[in-house]
Amino acid sequence: MVLKKYVFIISVFILSACKNDKAETIAENTSDKNSSHPSLILTKEGVKDIRAKLGTIPLFDKTLEAVKQEVDAEINAGIEIPIPKDFSGGYTHEQHKKNFLILQKAGVLFQILDDEKYAVYIRDMFMEYAKLYPTLPLHPQERSYARGKLFWQCLNDSNWLVYASQAYDCIYDWLSKEEREHLEKDLFIPFANFISKENPQFFNRVHNHSTWGNVAVGMIALVMDNDDLLNKALYGLKTDSIAADVKDDDGGFIKSKNQKVGFLANLDEPFSPDGYYTEGPYYQRYAMYPFLIFAQALENKKPELKIFEYKDGVLIKAVDALLNLSDKDGDFFPINDAQKGMSYYSRELVTAVDIAYHYGGKNSELLSIAKKQDKVNLDDTGLSIALGIKNNEVKPFTKESITLKDGPNGKQGAISIIRNSNLELVYKYTSQGLSHGHYDKLSFSLYNDGKEVLQDYGLARFVNIEQKGGGNYLKENTTWAKQTIAHNTIIQNETSHFNGKYEIGSKNHSNEYLFNVENKKVQVVSAKEENAYPGTILHRTMLLVNDTTFINHSFVLDLYNVSSNALNKYDLPFYYSGQLMQANFKYQQQSEIKTLGSSNGYQHLFVKALADAPKNNLQFNWLDNNVFYTITSATLPTDKIIFVETGANDPEFNLRRDPGFIIRKNNTKNALFVTAIEPHGTYSPVSEFSVNSYSSIAEIKTILSTKDYSAVSITNINKETKTFILCNTNSNKEAKHTLKINNKDYNWVGPFMYN
Amino acid sequence: MVLKKYVFIISVFILSACKNDKAETIAENTSDKNSSHPSLILTKEGVKDIRAKLGTIPLFDKTLEAVKQEVDAEINAGIEIPIPKDFSGGYTHEQHKKNFLILQKAGVLFQILDDEKYAVYIRDMFMEYAKLYPTLPLHPQERSYARGKLFWQCLNDSNWLVYASQAYDCIYDWLSKEEREHLEKDLFIPFANFISKENPQFFNRVHNHSTWGNVAVGMIALVMDNDDLLNKALYGLKTDSIAADVKDDDGGFIKSKNQKVGFLANLDEPFSPDGYYTEGPYYQRYAMYPFLIFAQALENKKPELKIFEYKDGVLIKAVDALLNLSDKDGDFFPINDAQKGMSYYSRELVTAVDIAYHYGGKNSELLSIAKKQDKVNLDDTGLSIALGIKNNEVKPFTKESITLKDGPNGKQGAISIIRNSNLELVYKYTSQGLSHGHYDKLSFSLYNDGKEVLQDYGLARFVNIEQKGGGNYLKENTTWAKQTIAHNTIIQNETSHFNGKYEIGSKNHSNEYLFNVENKKVQVVSAKEENAYPGTILHRTMLLVNDTTFINHSFVLDLYNVSSNALNKYDLPFYYSGQLMQANFKYQQQSEIKTLGSSNGYQHLFVKALADAPKNNLQFNWLDNNVFYTITSATLPTDKIIFVETGANDPEFNLRRDPGFIIRKNNTKNALFVTAIEPHGTYSPVSEFSVNSYSSIAEIKTILSTKDYSAVSITNINKETKTFILCNTNSNKEAKHTLKINNKDYNWVGPFMYN
Repeated sequence: MVLKKYVFIISVFILSACKNDKAETIAENTSDKNSSHPSLILTKEGVKDIRAKLGTIPLFDKTLEAVKQEVDAEINAGIEIPIPKDFSGGYTHEQHKKNFLILQKAGVLFQILDDEKYAVYIRDMFMEYAKLYPTLPLHPQERSYARGKLFWQCLNDSNWLVYASQAYDCIYDWLSKEEREHLEKDLFIPFANFISKENPQFFNRVHNHSTWGNVAVGMIALVMDNDDLLNKALYGLKTDSIAADVKDDDGGFIKSKNQKVGFLANLDEPFSPDGYYTEGPYYQRYAMYPFLIFAQALENKKPELKIFEYKDGVLIKAVDALLNLSDKDGDFFPINDAQKGMSYYSRELVTAVDIAYHYGGKNSELLSIAKKQDKVNLDDTGLSIALGIKNNEVKPFTKESITLKDGPNGKQGAISIIRNSNLELVYKYTSQGLSHGHYDKLSFSLYNDGKEVLQDYGLARFVNIEQKGGGNYLKENTTWAKQTIAHNTIIQNETSHFNGKYEIGSKNHSNEYLFNVENKKVQVVSAKEENAYPGTILHRTMLLVNDTTFINHSFVLDLYNVSSNALNKYDLPFYYSGQLMQANFKYQQQSEIKTLGSSNGYQHLFVKALADAPKNNLQFNWLDNNVFYTITSATLPTDKIIFVETGANDPEFNLRRDPGFIIRKNNTKNALFVTAIEPHGTYSPVSEFSVNSYSSIAEIKTILSTKDYSAVSITNINKETKTFILCNTNSNKEAKHTLKINNKDYNWVGPFMYN
Repeated sequence: MVLKKYVFIISVFILSACKNDKAETIAENTSDKNSSHPSLILTKEGVKDIRAKLGTIPLFDKTLEAVKQEVDAEINAGIEIPIPKDFSGGYTHEQHKKNFLILQKAGVLFQILDDEKYAVYIRDMFMEYAKLYPTLPLHPQERSYARGKLFWQCLNDSNWLVYASQAYDCIYDWLSKEEREHLEKDLFIPFANFISKENPQFFNRVHNHSTWGNVAVGMIALVMDNDDLLNKALYGLKTDSIAADVKDDDGGFIKSKNQKVGFLANLDEPFSPDGYYTEGPYYQRYAMYPFLIFAQALENKKPELKIFEYKDGVLIKAVDALLNLSDKDGDFFPINDAQKGMSYYSRELVTAVDIAYHYGGKNSELLSIAKKQDKVNLDDTGLSIALGIKNNEVKPFTKESITLKDGPNGKQGAISIIRNSNLELVYKYTSQGLSHGHYDKLSFSLYNDGKEVLQDYGLARFVNIEQKGGGNYLKENTTWAKQTIAHNTIIQNETSHFNGKYEIGSKNHSNEYLFNVENKKVQVVSAKEENAYPGTILHRTMLLVNDTTFINHSFVLDLYNVSSNALNKYDLPFYYSGQLMQANFKYQQQSEIKTLGSSNGYQHLFVKALADAPKNNLQFNWLDNNVFYTITSATLPTDKIIFVETGANDPEFNLRRDPGFIIRKNNTKNALFVTAIEPHGTYSPVSEFSVNSYSSIAEIKTILSTKDYSAVSITNINKETKTFILCNTNSNKEAKHTLKINNKDYNWVGPFMYN
């Protein structure tokens, strides 16, 4: 059923005929209710204030004009409400998605501009939805564990209701009582019931899906003053019939024993006290919108809940955490299931930043982010932030080195980002991250000037691109992206951490050993993982060194200690980009290309070349984005080097073709992988000058490796040597250490020294 | 021999002690000569004018300040003149290169700022070179057919002299007669002799190398008023002993029979009357500097030569041609041996644009390029262009569709660029392009918004990156980049055009069949190649269609007609970038990856997947840089599709890993490949919206293919059909055609119709 333009034209005609009557209806409606509308993201007071300031706040006015143009174009194009059919990326999916976004925008335009055409448009569209909705069976696409009606999953139906509720709130008073009763009876209440009590496996969880479900129900409840629905939104369904071992289609558990549910539980559990959301920044971005928009609505409608103070102000902290989880360009670090390119320019982050500014003490650093976003919410929060910018209160948002703890109480590992002027080292030692987590304990990625140097693969999915599996998760997400070999960390015996089993992974987490960024010359983070492989302890320590002894000063030093009670094979991959310039060892290109293994992600790697490691030090020099990099690693002649490329056993070409190389140690119990990663030069294809194209590191050597201590020396090309010593067993800051290595005495205080 | 800073300090001390004496010496010197200095790129009058305007012309002042800072830093660092040892990219090469660039800059600073420290620096460096040069044997690197002394090839020695001459000109009057005599005797004259009469195989050619050699000798001749050397520069050595079949290390012939040589011959022959330089834009850019800087010097010193009027003003036309051979971002199209990323931001183009402006009628469109370059020559030409910008005379440089004919008389084929708002189609049907030419008759590449869509591989070399074969041409340049299979054109029986033989290729060229861009709805270029494969005629016609019948309006239509007297195998590759989204046919990924062939470049291609072509139309849909593209091609079920990737038999990883796919026809005499290339949608990783992700073309069909006519129909997804008919045998614009196809009558005038 596609409504044509004449529907709109007729509506306008009817409206014109009865405009005066309408105005009276609004007055009647308003007077006979206790509550007032709008009251979710707009308030009567706020609207008054906005109207008074129109034309004087540049960023607000600019946004308003852009939104007006967008909505007017849609109104002119006419209402289209197709019968649901497609996966994301397909026509019907994208159209219903567009509809809810435009509904919300038309709502604020109606309030701010006081132009009834927007109210008419919203009412007409709602009426059509109210006609369609009762006739809808489950969505014909059957892939989801919780199929929706408008969309293939309840998740997207919930998106619809979160946005549509705001539009309803904006025209609530303008509608007649009969119209409201009709819409609520045939559309909103059945809609809310469908995504809650008819889909407890979707609604009664701790997951970003459920957050959307809870908020959808909560938002419409607030508009309708429906306490029953509001209670369900806040505290979940009292009873459901979810069995303990049921999983969703991403492989996550639906519900654990004694699991608290509802909006507040979703705030309690996935957020750490630092504001880190356990699924990672890509999903935190996705979840922040419902979290914050509902918080804003609750603050307006139920201020007694003090939602922004909940859990020591975690919602505002979460926005700060999220901004810190982005690179220099504002792109989120793509850990876990994350699509690359998502950034703080997304609409969710516009909302998040504006709300955090308005309700979080007007932190003027947020103004610089809003300025870059170049748009604001069309509500009190947007007015507030646009005013701050107008008044030149902008301060730069400075991203420092930071640790964000994971887990409801902050005791399930963490993610650390160590930064200097250009480099950003992302070190992940979190918990599993629910169903979107990857099996990559102690993995890292590295950025230079906002560009990936050593990458995290991200997810195997093309969100909303229908050609690729309906825009949904691809099977390579499980067989490649989630597997440990897809990450820059150690894999034992070609088996993923926790054997790639969610049941085990979700019960465990890594532990911080130390995080010390006080000395900008040597910023250190260290963590241990004791459960990924029973009988094996992984302990990785990463430094960002800034030392004038070395050309370009900055490099990463990586000490990866593995100790086991058995002989194992250890693989440590580095997924670089760009082109190999030179290696200091002979490698043999393969004439027939085979896969590296047959399972756990190894089946997706082509072996492009093989080599025996050099006796002392491997050096691998490459050029990427016109920057020269070298990895220098202390090796044994028994180590193997494997040059790989992704894309094997990928019959639909779902994976990117990315290069990597792996350092492999066979038949080893204990090992210390020591590696320096060094950006050291540049090339200009315009001047054709290359500067510092070779590494400044001549040698890296392990000078001591015991249970208690790891010590390495780094010698530059002028034969100057620096030493780093780590105590592996005592991270006490006050502890004094005395050590003799190669007849030299070392004395220091605290868990490490660099000199 | 590395001079340390104390040399500089001593010089400054001596200078301070005898500053007054010096001033007298200049006066004496000036008075006792007819000629005056400076007179190459700066003139006495010009310097006076510049000094008078200092501080009032922003872009000139800005450039001056930047150059001053650069040179002052080098003066502070001290003079370094290492014993020659390295290839390009290596330390000694880069240092001598830096020296000549700084010498030239120090020269203009001395003249403009009137600060003797610059003259002292130049003199001291020259003195050191005069000490070193007589002791130098041939450069120890033996790869070149014309080894230099300071550098591994005479070419770079010539670079040195072209720049150093300008510095010498600037301090000529300031030096004492004795100093000049010493420098000329021990450095400049032996230097000029070495690169001319001692290396006739380098000097007496038509080639960009020789241009540099001729200009080097000519520039120093002009400074010294040495007519003997000037004549050699302009007209070459009268006698040499070059055998007719000798080749250089790139495989080009040194000299053909009755070959004219010298600077003027190098202007006559490689430039077409349109200003196209036969080696292509990358080398044209490289050669433009000596051509133009010498022209400027000749215009100042020998105005009677009227060099800028030579060959109907070809030098100025050449700058315009070169700018037109760049994409939207200013990057040159990388045909032939070209390194990607070279652009009109290079120092050579700053010189070219300023000179073309000053001596070419002050074309105000050039001001917009100079503005983007954000720097100018520090001479009369730079002053002139900076003044134009200051006076707001800037007009946009508009690049239209253009054909640039090749060959000394413009009769050896051409290169055409067809443009619309975003797309740029580069179609090459030139002559061989001397030793830097590739065997790629009728090949094309496509750009969207300045980004490569279907690429030309470019060269296999990393210019000045020592790690990669000393920064020189890599053997894969011959075995891959030059071969036909590396390009988007037809390969017959896995053999390159002209059998990849330079002797044959350099005697032949393609011919334009038609070029018509009058109707912006259908811009057409068509050319024939009759010699690449004896017995086979290649005729390719490319259209840039702009028709609202199709989503996004624009697409390329490619009709590639091949007719032969024998059964052949034809391969037509398309080298795309980005990731395959979907194909409308089943393809089989290969589990063990092998090479496509064993020679002529086929040995460098991995076969990633194989398919039988669909019965009617192949559709291949991919995503690159967040734009969706589809190639639709009329196929026969007997056609094969081969998915390939470069990088096989590449033991040093010298090649990029780029994907492509090949349409193959076996056992075929005559065939018409009909293909549409269509950008049709976009994706945003921030909003996660995909727009128009599918092709708007439902079917492409060959409805007629005879000797005289090729006709194709293109049907969009709404079943609207357009027809294109080409007469293959008569390109007369007045000719009337009547044709019946499938019972429909077509009547039109001219070689083609689209309706």
